[in-house]
Amino acid sequence: MSLYRVGTSTCLFPEMPVITATGSVVGPREGQGPLGSLFDLAYRDTAAGETSWERGETRMLRQAVDIAMAKAGIADADVDFLLAGDLLNQIVSSSYAARDHDVPYLGLYGACSTMGEGLALAAFLVAGGFARNVVVCSSSHHDTAERQYRYPTEFGYQRVPTSQWTVTAAGAAVVGLSGRGPRIEAATVGRVQDFGVSDANDMGSAMAPAFADTVWRHLQDMSRKPEDYDIIFSGDLGRVGSAIADDLLGKKGLDIKALHRDTALMIYEMKPEVSSGASGCGCAASVFAAKIWADLASGALRRALLVPTGALHSPITCQQGESIPCVAHAVSLVGEGSRHTGEVRQ
Amino acid sequence: MSLYRVGTSTCLFPEMPVITATGSVVGPREGQGPLGSLFDLAYRDTAAGETSWERGETRMLRQAVDIAMAKAGIADADVDFLLAGDLLNQIVSSSYAARDHDVPYLGLYGACSTMGEGLALAAFLVAGGFARNVVVCSSSHHDTAERQYRYPTEFGYQRVPTSQWTVTAAGAAVVGLSGRGPRIEAATVGRVQDFGVSDANDMGSAMAPAFADTVWRHLQDMSRKPEDYDIIFSGDLGRVGSAIADDLLGKKGLDIKALHRDTALMIYEMKPEVSSGASGCGCAASVFAAKIWADLASGALRRALLVPTGALHSPITCQQGESIPCVAHAVSLVGEGSRHTGEVRQ
Repeated sequence: MSLYRVGTSTCLFPEMPVITATGSVVGPREGQGPLGSLFDLAYRDTAAGETSWERGETRMLRQAVDIAMAKAGIADADVDFLLAGDLLNQIVSSSYAARDHDVPYLGLYGACSTMGEGLALAAFLVAGGFARNVVVCSSSHHDTAERQYRYPTEFGYQRVPTSQWTVTAAGAAVVGLSGRGPRIEAATVGRVQDFGVSDANDMGSAMAPAFADTVWRHLQDMSRKPEDYDIIFSGDLGRVGSAIADDLLGKKGLDIKALHRDTALMIYEMKPEVSSGASGCGCAASVFAAKIWADLASGALRRALLVPTGALHSPITCQQGESIPCVAHAVSLVGEGSRHTGEVRQ
Repeated sequence: MSLYRVGTSTCLFPEMPVITATGSVVGPREGQGPLGSLFDLAYRDTAAGETSWERGETRMLRQAVDIAMAKAGIADADVDFLLAGDLLNQIVSSSYAARDHDVPYLGLYGACSTMGEGLALAAFLVAGGFARNVVVCSSSHHDTAERQYRYPTEFGYQRVPTSQWTVTAAGAAVVGLSGRGPRIEAATVGRVQDFGVSDANDMGSAMAPAFADTVWRHLQDMSRKPEDYDIIFSGDLGRVGSAIADDLLGKKGLDIKALHRDTALMIYEMKPEVSSGASGCGCAASVFAAKIWADLASGALRRALLVPTGALHSPITCQQGESIPCVAHAVSLVGEGSRHTGEVRQ
């Protein structure tokens, strides 16, 4: 049997799974941001017409899935797995959204790295011959997450410069065996990194080492340089974490500054209350669905590395004085016409 | 490309992944139960020598992994993925245990179905050619879970006959390409089922339809009868849920009563405080690791279906009046010498 691995951590897909369609649904602040017009649906109401924020988040996630499936022209019977995760305890947004689909369901938890974990697993399932189509989705909601992780949003606590603003957004993607669309060329699943940061208001600093480790391993495994990618997207390190990540990679001899963009710095106008940038697994998911996927499909991007990062703490572990373990997963995405040939030096 | 699927929901592995070793670590009550002598390690102290129950749970999970890897004779460098999940918010037991291994990490959430989800995914990763060895693990802890889902354990609330007792236990398994040991023949990933049960003290009734749906689909997809399995294990329906599950399958013309065993009814002596039986994702994980795997390895079981079931609610969704969505995943396990040949009728 063939083993489709290169180096220490990377899987390379001989037949590249295709991301045939995406869907994105966001809240009011995200809809008014720089990418506002690119999202499929933007609510003016943070509860998305439901009676609670939690129900609103579930509705947004379900709609992102429905939109992606409609664009791909597929129904439940065509989907072999639904992979989903979110920030809420027991990932209830995902499980309650999955309840409305008659599709085998696998729940994931990777905090803000979830869309990376999901896209990698979808690629494994499709490329391994276990699925025709896999739907991957992830969401976060400012009000459901803030009150769970920090304070009730009505409390109006003082934000610090390292704080990040949890987005209200959901993103979904259909990954299939064939069809048109950007493709998943390779995936590097990350290792847990913990450099001792214990401040839940400074997740960018905590996550930067995980991002740096995964990017470094991916480039080593693929025998590539940063310049082999048009853009390396992190999600979501924020302003503080992005600078640390660039420095960490610089110390390893990799200069990614000019190629590095962070989805946390793309979704909002950087007003003071946003502090260091956005966060929440809906951020990388919705920015990927609305912007990165579209740029790969149009040819504006030839090859991009998407590296969502997650902080794996809980309020309880922070109260107990633990530091924050983090993880980052990389998926290498190529535009429709690209090929491996001659580009992977093994 | 070949598609390794049969029927609506089942993947059949042409080269069956091997479960080369397992590890199990349990708390005091579990160590004194009917399976007590089979577990690799049983603590007399619910905090496992740590300063908090949460740290104790993490320690037990890490030790279950260490034991399984030691038995398999492998180190971190031989493991391509660590798949883990537990019941705590943000699956912190898993992520903190993963921090001590230099292995690519994928976090899962399937409540008590997690070991089923993990074994299925491990089989996909190994059989798809993406991993040499995958470590799968899951844990629960009576005290960390009860205070998170229901009441502080010191409160001593009145238990009802449908209540289940969350176990303090961790189980781990190494799934590989080759070697000796029981093998994973097929996996059926479940769909979310919700029949409207909203009582968090009656999870067995909530989960029974998910178990019945997955078992029914698995048998249909494989063109098999219940008798083709020596035992069909659920985990964990308890006394109440098991009876409902048998009835539901009976109405579909499948009589599994004589073949059905529930891991919730195997781990404890059924004293009054245990009520309907055990629960918690550590139950199916540790009973699989200590008992089911060993019986398949010794030849006492020729073929078994392991169907861990999960209730996917949270305390918040219960407070908001939502019903409990559930899921169950089936893995068909065969003893060392078994073959597909002539047994799968396609």
